[in-house]
Amino acid sequence: MKQRIYKLVVILAIFSVFNLGAVRAENGYNLWLRYMPIENGQLRQAYQHQLASIVVCNQSPTINAALKELINGINLMIGKVPNVSSITGNAAIDFKTNRLVLAKLDQPAIAAQFSTVELRQIGQEGYLIKTVRQNRVPQILIAANTDIGLLYGSFHLLKLMQTHQSLQALNIQQWPRLKLRILDHWDNLNGTVERGYAGYSLWNWQTLPGIIQKRYIDYARANASIGINGAVLNNVNASVKSLTKEYLIKTAALAKAFKPYGIKVYLTAKFSAPKELGHLKTADPLDPAVIKWWKDKVAEIYHYIPNFGGFLVKASSEGQPGPGDYGRTHADGANMMAAALKPYGGIVMWRTFVYENKKGADRAKQGYDEFKPLDGKFDENVLLQAKYGPIDFQPREAFNPLFGAMPHTHMMMEFQITQEYFGFATHLVYLGSLFQEYLRKDTYQKGPGTTIAKVLEERVNPGTDDNNRLTGIAGVANIGTDVNWCGHPFGQANWYAFGRFAWNPMASADSIAADWLKMTFTNDPGFVNPIKKLMLGSREVAVNYMTPLGLSHLMKFALHYGPGPWSKSAEVYHHADSVGIGLDRTVTGSDAVSQYAPALASKYSNLKTTPLNLILWFHHIGWDQKIATGETMWNSLVHYYYQGVKQVAAMQQIWQSMKGKIDEDRFNYVTQLLKQQHLEAKWWRNGCVLYFQQYSKRPLPKDCKEPGKAYWNYPTFKPDLPFPYHLDDQ
Amino acid sequence: MKQRIYKLVVILAIFSVFNLGAVRAENGYNLWLRYMPIENGQLRQAYQHQLASIVVCNQSPTINAALKELINGINLMIGKVPNVSSITGNAAIDFKTNRLVLAKLDQPAIAAQFSTVELRQIGQEGYLIKTVRQNRVPQILIAANTDIGLLYGSFHLLKLMQTHQSLQALNIQQWPRLKLRILDHWDNLNGTVERGYAGYSLWNWQTLPGIIQKRYIDYARANASIGINGAVLNNVNASVKSLTKEYLIKTAALAKAFKPYGIKVYLTAKFSAPKELGHLKTADPLDPAVIKWWKDKVAEIYHYIPNFGGFLVKASSEGQPGPGDYGRTHADGANMMAAALKPYGGIVMWRTFVYENKKGADRAKQGYDEFKPLDGKFDENVLLQAKYGPIDFQPREAFNPLFGAMPHTHMMMEFQITQEYFGFATHLVYLGSLFQEYLRKDTYQKGPGTTIAKVLEERVNPGTDDNNRLTGIAGVANIGTDVNWCGHPFGQANWYAFGRFAWNPMASADSIAADWLKMTFTNDPGFVNPIKKLMLGSREVAVNYMTPLGLSHLMKFALHYGPGPWSKSAEVYHHADSVGIGLDRTVTGSDAVSQYAPALASKYSNLKTTPLNLILWFHHIGWDQKIATGETMWNSLVHYYYQGVKQVAAMQQIWQSMKGKIDEDRFNYVTQLLKQQHLEAKWWRNGCVLYFQQYSKRPLPKDCKEPGKAYWNYPTFKPDLPFPYHLDDQ
Repeated sequence: MKQRIYKLVVILAIFSVFNLGAVRAENGYNLWLRYMPIENGQLRQAYQHQLASIVVCNQSPTINAALKELINGINLMIGKVPNVSSITGNAAIDFKTNRLVLAKLDQPAIAAQFSTVELRQIGQEGYLIKTVRQNRVPQILIAANTDIGLLYGSFHLLKLMQTHQSLQALNIQQWPRLKLRILDHWDNLNGTVERGYAGYSLWNWQTLPGIIQKRYIDYARANASIGINGAVLNNVNASVKSLTKEYLIKTAALAKAFKPYGIKVYLTAKFSAPKELGHLKTADPLDPAVIKWWKDKVAEIYHYIPNFGGFLVKASSEGQPGPGDYGRTHADGANMMAAALKPYGGIVMWRTFVYENKKGADRAKQGYDEFKPLDGKFDENVLLQAKYGPIDFQPREAFNPLFGAMPHTHMMMEFQITQEYFGFATHLVYLGSLFQEYLRKDTYQKGPGTTIAKVLEERVNPGTDDNNRLTGIAGVANIGTDVNWCGHPFGQANWYAFGRFAWNPMASADSIAADWLKMTFTNDPGFVNPIKKLMLGSREVAVNYMTPLGLSHLMKFALHYGPGPWSKSAEVYHHADSVGIGLDRTVTGSDAVSQYAPALASKYSNLKTTPLNLILWFHHIGWDQKIATGETMWNSLVHYYYQGVKQVAAMQQIWQSMKGKIDEDRFNYVTQLLKQQHLEAKWWRNGCVLYFQQYSKRPLPKDCKEPGKAYWNYPTFKPDLPFPYHLDDQ
Repeated sequence: MKQRIYKLVVILAIFSVFNLGAVRAENGYNLWLRYMPIENGQLRQAYQHQLASIVVCNQSPTINAALKELINGINLMIGKVPNVSSITGNAAIDFKTNRLVLAKLDQPAIAAQFSTVELRQIGQEGYLIKTVRQNRVPQILIAANTDIGLLYGSFHLLKLMQTHQSLQALNIQQWPRLKLRILDHWDNLNGTVERGYAGYSLWNWQTLPGIIQKRYIDYARANASIGINGAVLNNVNASVKSLTKEYLIKTAALAKAFKPYGIKVYLTAKFSAPKELGHLKTADPLDPAVIKWWKDKVAEIYHYIPNFGGFLVKASSEGQPGPGDYGRTHADGANMMAAALKPYGGIVMWRTFVYENKKGADRAKQGYDEFKPLDGKFDENVLLQAKYGPIDFQPREAFNPLFGAMPHTHMMMEFQITQEYFGFATHLVYLGSLFQEYLRKDTYQKGPGTTIAKVLEERVNPGTDDNNRLTGIAGVANIGTDVNWCGHPFGQANWYAFGRFAWNPMASADSIAADWLKMTFTNDPGFVNPIKKLMLGSREVAVNYMTPLGLSHLMKFALHYGPGPWSKSAEVYHHADSVGIGLDRTVTGSDAVSQYAPALASKYSNLKTTPLNLILWFHHIGWDQKIATGETMWNSLVHYYYQGVKQVAAMQQIWQSMKGKIDEDRFNYVTQLLKQQHLEAKWWRNGCVLYFQQYSKRPLPKDCKEPGKAYWNYPTFKPDLPFPYHLDDQ
């Protein structure tokens, strides 16, 4: 009778140890608001002491939301439910027990705790968190001018706990630098999400307005936790149905659900709505009947949705109707809508993503050419929403020259959180690096230091005060009905980072990543430090295996997944020929450089002073030309592609070494995804290198092994994507 | 200094109590496999004693799956991880510690624990669970002929624990009565689900084969827990793409992931594939090139998927191509495919859902007329898949006359789990009642007692033995990527019930509902008893407010949501006129009764002997005619509609009284859904009563208040549904 213990037992023993409590199964639904139990005994005790009770000084749905979040979060983290009470007057300060106090600054006793400067800075959404002492008893005071400020402050406090920070001697002042911090959902009414890779649209139109899913509330909570205060619910390729009474009623239910969390609802407005819905013969923005139609429609909207935010408009772009159809300008169109919205405090966000695929024309110039002449012509409640680059959300582009060039127009940034050009929901790419890069870009429009952040915050022109400011930033959402909301577990980090940068455009991608990792996975520095590094480098890794050195738009036509430099449509982006590769955007080429401030135009005009990561954006460079890498253009290009693949392999190794530090399910899922990413990085490398080699006709550098597969034979991924996609059958 | 304690505090205090541990937030993802901690101290201790260790006698992926489930479930429920060891030979019986033993019956020592009868009955998928004693030490022995039997047995044991049953003196014998227990997923390759209301398709074709999501494994686990052993992955309205190499490779990855859980993968096969994929000029099943094409295709399929199950075919139905296009019979078509599959053990499931919308023709007769002449003409590895009724999954239909009328053909039942005609994912409808009703229907084909269950199990003809049997049942899945898989929390019960009935067609809807409630919500009889009653009655409630007394197909055209008796297409289903309502299916009408056994035909021919719940299915009844209710037809019809609405209100009240017994999130969600269901029941009542009143021209019974809104003005719900739906704009 022999007892054979298989390796199975060892494996199961390990499994058992981990199931003895510490690492429970997680599916990502809770995002960064997991509120995991705090295991450090000292810290837990300190928190228990400090948060034994909560006092609120007023009642409202927003205060209730803050309380619910605090109670739930505190209880989950330290295993004790705080006592909650409500008081008014001076009573807030006299109690002898440790307390967390939420109070508005209209109470003199509360305001007295802060300096005039502090009080002035925080505005309508900011908050102050201070440890105050009365009779030697410390209290944590969260104070703000509004309830929403108190909600934001509550999330900040919870974040401190989630990242295991001390709550002693707090002295925090926080306020957002941009007014409109918005998610653009490219959601279609049929539930599909354009450029969405994380499931269906969150908005279940069929069961609205009657059913408010918990998902909507959790969405609102997640956004409030990072200060996002607006959501455009429908696709920029708009359906007029969104403006019908039936859908306004449904939208109103969402607006009502979001309101306690400080989130306003916006809708995209199709320019042809007066014709399609109103059965007018025209949509000419100067036509009186059209003007009246929009006026009436806006009145109807505000009847159902009193706190409606306004319209987002994609017009005269990619086939969408617009004022240009009637010989009118963008300003004509935007101002007509803005006038209708102004009495209600609504705004218009008008997209500058306008281009024509004219042969020979440089697409990168067209947004500027179209909108620069209109500077100063837009009404005060209009913002232009411009992408960070002049092409279309590429892994790297030169920054959009409109930023800084429109001093008399409200400009807002449009980032893309969904990874349309960055590997969908398969590739690990932390976009915090990208957000930071573009926000800190120096436009030089008023000398050095005129960063895009400063432009967005409207701090460039002295004398601009709050009353004249209308600032904002939008991110195209990567959110859907997938259990983990974003498809890739690390996709959540991009939603999170967008919110953090929207609140403070000069934030640090590094510390944002650290916060997110601690809240989403673990505080263990043995995980946070290496994975933060991995995240920070991941965007550049993708650039390397997709479009290095300033290349852009080599993705498969229409689908935007996988390599496709051989598409006819991609030729205009790489201009590869027997001589070399890259686009001449200097004066000898399209002269796109002239759209930048002179200091930059001159910098970009000279290959030697052009940043290495943009040389092929601005220059057509001979294959044999030596570049700043010390190697020829061809060899450098190939080396970057090969480096990208190696870097993904390195990411895989780093990730593998994290085994056991986090929950099994997400660890395994990311392991699979990285494996797939490595495969696809090779697909990119092989495809692009072999394709460009047809032009360079040069051998690969000696240290680069032959790719092996011809690009056109590589296993294809031709997924059927829901309407309105079509695939290039090459 | 006055401290005012708002009602808020009371509410929060209640909230606090519930958050002190007992009722944690749940989103339904874990289905009925929650493995909640067992609070009863005695029971927990008993389990800890009995399950201190697990012994397995062989290794395989299936055994690993069983072990993982047991370890995880046991640990979650009793807070202790069992020791696991592996032994062979006689060692299994000699140990002195309490143990759970998983062993196959090829070991004589194991087989010796059971009688010959027990051993013979369980077959290839059954299991035995017995408390055996050696040296006074009790052990729980799970024994089976195969590893999959052991997996099923493990789930059974876990179910006993989840339902808080004693594990002493176990003596269980279980085996499935039907061989093929299959979910039909009407999933399109673009991710949408036809007649699906719970999100996208689970199968992420874009990231297959590389990424195996945990969702696929949890899907497999859930199915294994109820004995489902097959999944058709794609829509009966098939795309030929599913048969391409690229998609076979992706499908193979799913098949591999499912295999340890005993689930085979099937595909729908579009009859025109030889033309669309093979570029042949014909798809004539008797054409040699076509025959060869399918033969080669099947060989290719089995190359990638060695355990492929076979094809599901919808042909010559609703526009789908089929053998009829070439003047061939269904048997010609099915047999050609079956011949290709036979060498590999594959099967063909050929749907009998064939009808033409011929004016004047009775749709209910067409399936029988089409297939009855073909009885005995199908090869041995073909089954005909027939819906429970001859129309299309209506809330109630007369049963499909094909059942019992095809003694020489393998027949399988097609149920619909997704609530296409039962309120999508909004209405609470427990279909266990429906499954039970149809499985127990007496066809009288070989005298009384020839139930559909008996027909399906092929026990009607004496002498049929296992070798000649090919039995099965299919359910059109209600599963999607929604966090809770099914949309409505109670939709899960229908998936669960389908599996349980597939295992045992003579199961009880009552005890299945009880099991499901205990596993999914709580064992508290104060919840289980009333809600079980609520569930059991819910199907009839829906019948009452939608299509009472044998009416059918009054749903809105194409969409199938909400009332639509006024559609031109609905007239053929109610035949309302100034005289009365209902379809004459006796000899004076379409004579559909003649398709039933004579005993039934005669019963249905006579209004007095026709079951009340089918009178309008078989008879056109005058508005003033007194019927078995004791009232006139008109008054009865109206009363049923009003009764349905009242019953939903009663459901709401019962549900409200359950507050606090289960988690807040699911309680609140069902509360919302019931409120919406009540609203929509009124929509149905108003719409149908007011519409039919146009024909009856009679007043409502005195006790029925005026509905208030004309049917055409009732708030409409015109959701955009993904392709291929279109809406009736009436």
